[in-house]
Amino acid sequence: MSERPGEEALIARFFAPLATDPGALGLLDDAATLSLPQGEELVVTTDALVSGGHFFPNDPPDLVARKALRVNLSDLAAKGARPRGYLLTLALPDDWTVEWLEAFARGLREDQEAFGFPLLGGDTTRAMGPLVISVTALGTVPAGRAIRRTGARPGDVVAVSGTIGDGALGCRLLYEPSLGAGLPREHLAALHARYRLPLPRTGLIELLRAVAHAAMDVSDGLVGDLAKLCLASGVAAEIEADAVPLSAAAGALIALKPALFEAALTGGDDYEILAALPQTALAGLSGALTPIGRIVNGAGEVRVVRGGAPLALAKGSFSHF
Amino acid sequence: MSERPGEEALIARFFAPLATDPGALGLLDDAATLSLPQGEELVVTTDALVSGGHFFPNDPPDLVARKALRVNLSDLAAKGARPRGYLLTLALPDDWTVEWLEAFARGLREDQEAFGFPLLGGDTTRAMGPLVISVTALGTVPAGRAIRRTGARPGDVVAVSGTIGDGALGCRLLYEPSLGAGLPREHLAALHARYRLPLPRTGLIELLRAVAHAAMDVSDGLVGDLAKLCLASGVAAEIEADAVPLSAAAGALIALKPALFEAALTGGDDYEILAALPQTALAGLSGALTPIGRIVNGAGEVRVVRGGAPLALAKGSFSHF
Repeated sequence: MSERPGEEALIARFFAPLATDPGALGLLDDAATLSLPQGEELVVTTDALVSGGHFFPNDPPDLVARKALRVNLSDLAAKGARPRGYLLTLALPDDWTVEWLEAFARGLREDQEAFGFPLLGGDTTRAMGPLVISVTALGTVPAGRAIRRTGARPGDVVAVSGTIGDGALGCRLLYEPSLGAGLPREHLAALHARYRLPLPRTGLIELLRAVAHAAMDVSDGLVGDLAKLCLASGVAAEIEADAVPLSAAAGALIALKPALFEAALTGGDDYEILAALPQTALAGLSGALTPIGRIVNGAGEVRVVRGGAPLALAKGSFSHF
Repeated sequence: MSERPGEEALIARFFAPLATDPGALGLLDDAATLSLPQGEELVVTTDALVSGGHFFPNDPPDLVARKALRVNLSDLAAKGARPRGYLLTLALPDDWTVEWLEAFARGLREDQEAFGFPLLGGDTTRAMGPLVISVTALGTVPAGRAIRRTGARPGDVVAVSGTIGDGALGCRLLYEPSLGAGLPREHLAALHARYRLPLPRTGLIELLRAVAHAAMDVSDGLVGDLAKLCLASGVAAEIEADAVPLSAAAGALIALKPALFEAALTGGDDYEILAALPQTALAGLSGALTPIGRIVNGAGEVRVVRGGAPLALAKGSFSHF
């Protein structure tokens, strides 16, 4: 174990090299500046991860770092916002090591380069408990063009990006490996990977701004998050369970353990986009979003149907709280 | 003890009423939007407070909330930025109570109204340890006009706002009440109050933008923070110990316990402004900033002199890390 530097040496060594935006002034200042392009406005969001709650204490630090950035990038993407930079607060446990921080910083670097998302500032302090990672993400949209949760209208199509349930199933398998008995190794690995490292849908920003009446990312479970979107929009929704896109791995696991289908629909950690869009937009989606249902009149209810009959679900969504 | 609501009920009850900016959408969305006035740029900073490190677990929750906002407002003020809003991450310990959160939210409300600083968004999660409060503060300045740490030049005057040392002495007295033996009660109360509730110098924003070559807030101790400013500017400084402004309370305590003078100069928790400005600006300060020394050639050294002789200090600044 290497000797641990003090706060300033730590910032200079691990974080200053990540502050590549000129407005961050190499983290030598108390604050960063950010200029917005003419006609754009700021979109800002924050999400924290706590060791033992949002990730396993022994998870590889670079993956933890990347997840911390990606859950925030996912929120920006769902709002149609281009990522511009982030602030990072680290409350470090007493037993932090240089090696851990080195790997954590490597993970930050990898993803901030991949997503064009430089470190703008932050704060490092002692946690007096387990590690707490808080990221504030800044993005920009053309003024007035952020996609809200509030714009869904009866008659809209409900659609999702990618596949649903992989993250939740991956998490379940980490806690209860026996559930994966009989599942091919590559499927197991795929589900674990999706839980540990979500893929924020930054590539859909332009499409979403072009077609979505309302959008959010699916982090607490498809059904529960759709209910939140409906509540915010003053509508209800009906989704067809068999239309929900599943990965080959999730499909194979659910074929072995049909009861896990509910975990896929309600478990969370998907970081896919959930959107409400007009019927007329369907033709232009080129497979980027899959229709799974429709918006109807109502007050936040979400009905899941399968073969015409309602599917009863034990719980709507997952909460870290 | 009242029954504790779940995360969403908690947000609706305690935090949504604080999200008074239209861009916060009543916290119903994943992200907030913020428009910048034409010609302005964003200034962004983040500071976290941890229970047991930055405040006492039994401190009144409304004061903790106000301190969390004020240490960030102090950073914005030092950069010449007008406060626009904040994001709040709360990692709550297992034993949080409705009463605690109610008082905490009351403190937020009081100061966000006083400083025109609405809640824009946040995240609430479980800490798995002591309370961690992370605030990200957003402000604006005319583009290119943020005051940096990097602009101090040889020949500049070093000046500070208000009085120095009250916060550090107040903190010392809370840990070691015997140090205050013989100190009049009102002085004791004044020093405690300054530690518990700093006063961010938002009223100096315009003046600082008009005159300061460089500025920062004094949070880790006057001498250590001045060294940071000098290092960032590639200069050194010399300050006259007897020119450092002390409050009546700090003066009285130091008269009783002269050894505490060093704590006043190096202890931190001042949240006053430290600035480097040209000699020509001195006439226009109207007492808002007190000259305490000057910038000289060098590489970050800070010399403290008293009656012509250098004053040896055991430590430069305080670190929460």
